[in-house]
Amino acid sequence: MVVVMEERASEDQIQQVIAHLVENEFDVHRSTGQLRSVLGAVGGNRGFDARLIEVMDGVHEVMRITEPYKLASRTFRPENTAVSFGDFRVGGDEVIVMAGPCSVETEEQIAAAAAAVRKAGAKVLRGGAFKPRSSPYSFQGLGEEGLRLLRDAADAEGLKVVSEVMDVSQIDLVARYADVLQVGARNMQNYTLLRELGRSATPVLLKRGISATIEEWLLSAEYVLSGGNANVILCERGIRTFESYTRNTMDISAIPVVHKLSHLPVIADPSHGTGLRDKVAPMARAAIAAGADGLIIEVHPDPDHAVSDGAQSIFPTQFDRLMAELRIIAPAIGRSICLEPVAWRGWGT
Amino acid sequence: MVVVMEERASEDQIQQVIAHLVENEFDVHRSTGQLRSVLGAVGGNRGFDARLIEVMDGVHEVMRITEPYKLASRTFRPENTAVSFGDFRVGGDEVIVMAGPCSVETEEQIAAAAAAVRKAGAKVLRGGAFKPRSSPYSFQGLGEEGLRLLRDAADAEGLKVVSEVMDVSQIDLVARYADVLQVGARNMQNYTLLRELGRSATPVLLKRGISATIEEWLLSAEYVLSGGNANVILCERGIRTFESYTRNTMDISAIPVVHKLSHLPVIADPSHGTGLRDKVAPMARAAIAAGADGLIIEVHPDPDHAVSDGAQSIFPTQFDRLMAELRIIAPAIGRSICLEPVAWRGWGT
Amino acid sequence: MVVVMEERASEDQIQQVIAHLVENEFDVHRSTGQLRSVLGAVGGNRGFDARLIEVMDGVHEVMRITEPYKLASRTFRPENTAVSFGDFRVGGDEVIVMAGPCSVETEEQIAAAAAAVRKAGAKVLRGGAFKPRSSPYSFQGLGEEGLRLLRDAADAEGLKVVSEVMDVSQIDLVARYADVLQVGARNMQNYTLLRELGRSATPVLLKRGISATIEEWLLSAEYVLSGGNANVILCERGIRTFESYTRNTMDISAIPVVHKLSHLPVIADPSHGTGLRDKVAPMARAAIAAGADGLIIEVHPDPDHAVSDGAQSIFPTQFDRLMAELRIIAPAIGRSICLEPVAWRGWGT
Amino acid sequence: MVVVMEERASEDQIQQVIAHLVENEFDVHRSTGQLRSVLGAVGGNRGFDARLIEVMDGVHEVMRITEPYKLASRTFRPENTAVSFGDFRVGGDEVIVMAGPCSVETEEQIAAAAAAVRKAGAKVLRGGAFKPRSSPYSFQGLGEEGLRLLRDAADAEGLKVVSEVMDVSQIDLVARYADVLQVGARNMQNYTLLRELGRSATPVLLKRGISATIEEWLLSAEYVLSGGNANVILCERGIRTFESYTRNTMDISAIPVVHKLSHLPVIADPSHGTGLRDKVAPMARAAIAAGADGLIIEVHPDPDHAVSDGAQSIFPTQFDRLMAELRIIAPAIGRSICLEPVAWRGWGT
Repeated sequence: MVVVMEERASEDQIQQVIAHLVENEFDVHRSTGQLRSVLGAVGGNRGFDARLIEVMDGVHEVMRITEPYKLASRTFRPENTAVSFGDFRVGGDEVIVMAGPCSVETEEQIAAAAAAVRKAGAKVLRGGAFKPRSSPYSFQGLGEEGLRLLRDAADAEGLKVVSEVMDVSQIDLVARYADVLQVGARNMQNYTLLRELGRSATPVLLKRGISATIEEWLLSAEYVLSGGNANVILCERGIRTFESYTRNTMDISAIPVVHKLSHLPVIADPSHGTGLRDKVAPMARAAIAAGADGLIIEVHPDPDHAVSDGAQSIFPTQFDRLMAELRIIAPAIGRSICLEPVAWRGWGT
Repeated sequence: MVVVMEERASEDQIQQVIAHLVENEFDVHRSTGQLRSVLGAVGGNRGFDARLIEVMDGVHEVMRITEPYKLASRTFRPENTAVSFGDFRVGGDEVIVMAGPCSVETEEQIAAAAAAVRKAGAKVLRGGAFKPRSSPYSFQGLGEEGLRLLRDAADAEGLKVVSEVMDVSQIDLVARYADVLQVGARNMQNYTLLRELGRSATPVLLKRGISATIEEWLLSAEYVLSGGNANVILCERGIRTFESYTRNTMDISAIPVVHKLSHLPVIADPSHGTGLRDKVAPMARAAIAAGADGLIIEVHPDPDHAVSDGAQSIFPTQFDRLMAELRIIAPAIGRSICLEPVAWRGWGT
Repeated sequence: MVVVMEERASEDQIQQVIAHLVENEFDVHRSTGQLRSVLGAVGGNRGFDARLIEVMDGVHEVMRITEPYKLASRTFRPENTAVSFGDFRVGGDEVIVMAGPCSVETEEQIAAAAAAVRKAGAKVLRGGAFKPRSSPYSFQGLGEEGLRLLRDAADAEGLKVVSEVMDVSQIDLVARYADVLQVGARNMQNYTLLRELGRSATPVLLKRGISATIEEWLLSAEYVLSGGNANVILCERGIRTFESYTRNTMDISAIPVVHKLSHLPVIADPSHGTGLRDKVAPMARAAIAAGADGLIIEVHPDPDHAVSDGAQSIFPTQFDRLMAELRIIAPAIGRSICLEPVAWRGWGT
Repeated sequence: MVVVMEERASEDQIQQVIAHLVENEFDVHRSTGQLRSVLGAVGGNRGFDARLIEVMDGVHEVMRITEPYKLASRTFRPENTAVSFGDFRVGGDEVIVMAGPCSVETEEQIAAAAAAVRKAGAKVLRGGAFKPRSSPYSFQGLGEEGLRLLRDAADAEGLKVVSEVMDVSQIDLVARYADVLQVGARNMQNYTLLRELGRSATPVLLKRGISATIEEWLLSAEYVLSGGNANVILCERGIRTFESYTRNTMDISAIPVVHKLSHLPVIADPSHGTGLRDKVAPMARAAIAAGADGLIIEVHPDPDHAVSDGAQSIFPTQFDRLMAELRIIAPAIGRSICLEPVAWRGWGT
């Protein structure tokens, strides 16, 4: 922490700041310039609130010099982390695509979705059984029955499964059916949930909150990591800005930024990132071109009759074409993407 | 819902849109202009996603004509709702002030805080026992012991109690000690929590998420109301904008906007709204001048040594002065504010 | 400037940063900690771009320790500046209210507006003769004829005049008729215009751009001040956020923030700040309660037939009532507001 | 325009709204539902402010059904516009890259930049002679001498020239040296400037303001188009959001959105879009993958000693590599990008 004093700060004010820092176990180094004094403070209590110094008399500004997260930072772990489940690795050379409908609706629907996305080259099946909906009157998901249908459909096609967990009480249940537990954007700062997921061994897909800074997002990852679960995949899915044409503004630049600050893999969700079907493919291509480690995309066998998010779900034929485009783009940045579709692997994982 | 077709939309495209609307149980009224056709659709399935029409061929734009919330709207209930607990009413002529420390720390601290804020005219004591912190390494609250200390301190001064509930599992516990259950900004869209609070009889203080639109905020209130709990107090506490000088930008205009759209009372939290001690009083005054039904303010007997949020907590003397200023301002808008400090009411509620 | 090196920065990288700083005339002070080195740099070329250091190998973060503006800062001038014109002072004990229509339309309209606002206690007449409109098809203003009508109407009521100047070529013309030259939000970073206004002796009312940080706003003021014109009044008029219910989100907290950072007076524009007639009065009251030095408000004798901004213009009777409310609020913060309406002062200034 | 009345609107209120619409030359069609009345209004005065209806008693909401721009819309012109200058077309099958330093500094610098970018495949040389700087103390550009150096360097390499014009008074001067006139983000709503550029025959590169909606951006294009200049190239360069890690957040989704709403070509500026050198290449790739018609990139022969924007300028070797990556990506969306570098074309245009 660096404390910049006001030009007119009195010696007494400077001494009070030093005393407060020392009281909180900081080592303080004072540098007295012609115009103003600057104090360097290292060590100190973890979690100390720097604003406490900021409001002291004579203080001009306080600047942190370390990130508030540790286990998630590239300083802590310089090499990339790849999160593995089954034979797949998110964060390796291959770009991993997860696809499927917003909600699991029926056995036929999820089976058709699984077959379509597997054929095009996806490796993980997505589908919601517990849905966070902004209106209490909207469809809220099939619950455990949905999870069972999802698992069966994935197994039939040799796919892995990712599904959302909304509450601590659902963790064990969802983990019985899914290979990856998704934390939705609205729960990115549900610390009770994050803390419990830290005690799990199942990989976590942590979506960025729509108004979360990259630092806050990494701090939420830190909650999971600090609990002992090292398998965190980050997911950019659009942030809220003044522009209302798209549902959210996808922050594509977050992808290279996360790669610089953290060793964790980061994927992109162009379906929620834009909220509009015809913008999904351009943004999926953009994310891969910018270096994303994977994608999660809403694909529905019949989007016009989807019970949720149909407007941002793409048709299987659109997904086929997108995968073909991605196969051209990935090599530009030294990545590959499922050159061979997944072979059928029989029932069961 | 109004569906505006493209100028070049074909008759076939128009018919497909009409068919899709009818399939979803809308009554459709077509108006064929010189340049374009416009379809009015009423009725329909609750929770129907208008974007499904928006992505159809030939559609220019879709506009909802009703708010997605119902019980929270002023259309549903034109007169103001006042939420009562004990002898107090939030949303009546009197402006209610809730005050106290961010976290309950010790018996001495909370007792001193309670005495100070009661003396100045506050009617409700605030204090956190479960703290949502963005870093896993920060102080997380005293839990039930904190609730007990909070209740005792409040009872000793004849104050009511408001405290935060972070998770479904904490509802019963917190409701045993508090008169009002606070839902924090980060949990504004924790629907599992909101749904459970709808089954409670205890009043709920629902903070606005830092990136929630007013519509989303009212939809979250709808979750609680639709569960049967009619006692919802809204609380503006700052939204996230590009301006980073203040921690958040307090959206003072949300106060008159909520009063227009909804019958629910709305209070303001200038402590979180600004994050800076010396901005608390100006923003508290502004909120009352704009018509807020109350305030919730962080006051700490010794802010410089607070374990959390000390930098945005004000000193008791600052709170005294603020209350005096508010007593001048409130009559400008036909309100009163605790002309007489609360008389001592003995122990116990 | 403080340069924080990466934990793994090599000695060679540190030396290169030092060399680059010295080359740009900084004095460098190195502090070598256990984990990382921190370099303090003072002096240096004015306008040096700190990001040049930020992109160097081994650099973790760079932090400025001085504001980029000087003449506008309270460090430079600790006491308040009051901008005077005629007998009025903006930034003194009295709150100054400027009011009038968005555009000057006709002789009758502006005369009626002037009489109405003078009667209620306004001291300055506002009105646009050159209008910046987002659509090329909207009314663009009466030009010089509008200025003449504005001046005459003000003189007849003993009011001062504020009017907008959109371009360098209009400065001399507008200054012949107006006492204060307004720079609109869209021109806040029109540096050619600001530079020329710095050469003028006429006071400048500088509106905040809808997406300008407070620092950028003060830097724009610096352009005018550094040209020699010390008479700058700042004006908060709403920033652009994700919330779209109001046209802009009025940043009331900017008022106390500007008062802390700068000695310049700051007023508020609740008409553009909200864009909605029924939100003007609450936000005007809030601004004064937060400490604003004045207001600029759109008042029209017949808002429903205004050629521009009618929807955010208030009726004269609404303005009367607002002024009465403000007279109650101002004393809460030790200010007064036109206890006696302006006496008629005859024709001419 | 569609006017939705309140559920409780009286017949009298409805009649007043109808009267107001008729007075403004709208044809009104009334549709009386069980719950509420909806009025459809077509025709009407151009530039009519819909908010005037919104504030009337009994009105619930007003929705426009046509875009406020016309000449810029795809409804007006369904096929793509390609802007040509010399042998190049921006908006055709080939992706056009413009590159060069932020500011023209010296003859050697601009000549080296021109040679480097031409060799890698750029077709247009960028360079600023008039610089809009947020601080009055920063370098403001070489003026006409800079333009002369820029033109000479471009001619020597057979490149075209794009340079910024900040003010009406500079149009003729810059147009003598440049093939494309750039309007900077801060001037996107400088209507005096846009109107004058509408009278020019030189193509205009119109950057999006950092807080401009896509609609406002297209309205600014409309100013130029309605003046008679049909050669407008749009340029996305980042919008202001709450995320402060990057200087701006590049809105990649604006590229497909503009392509849907307008026939005008749109390019991207990843240098200003991110403000960070190591983020330029990922975002340039992303923009092309999303369908951009071109790029404008800051390349400097010696970025560490650039007088402006050095931190976001890339090295010539980085630019070479980026161009090679783009040649892989462009075919994925059916585009080509300078397979053969520009042949030397002798001196002079």
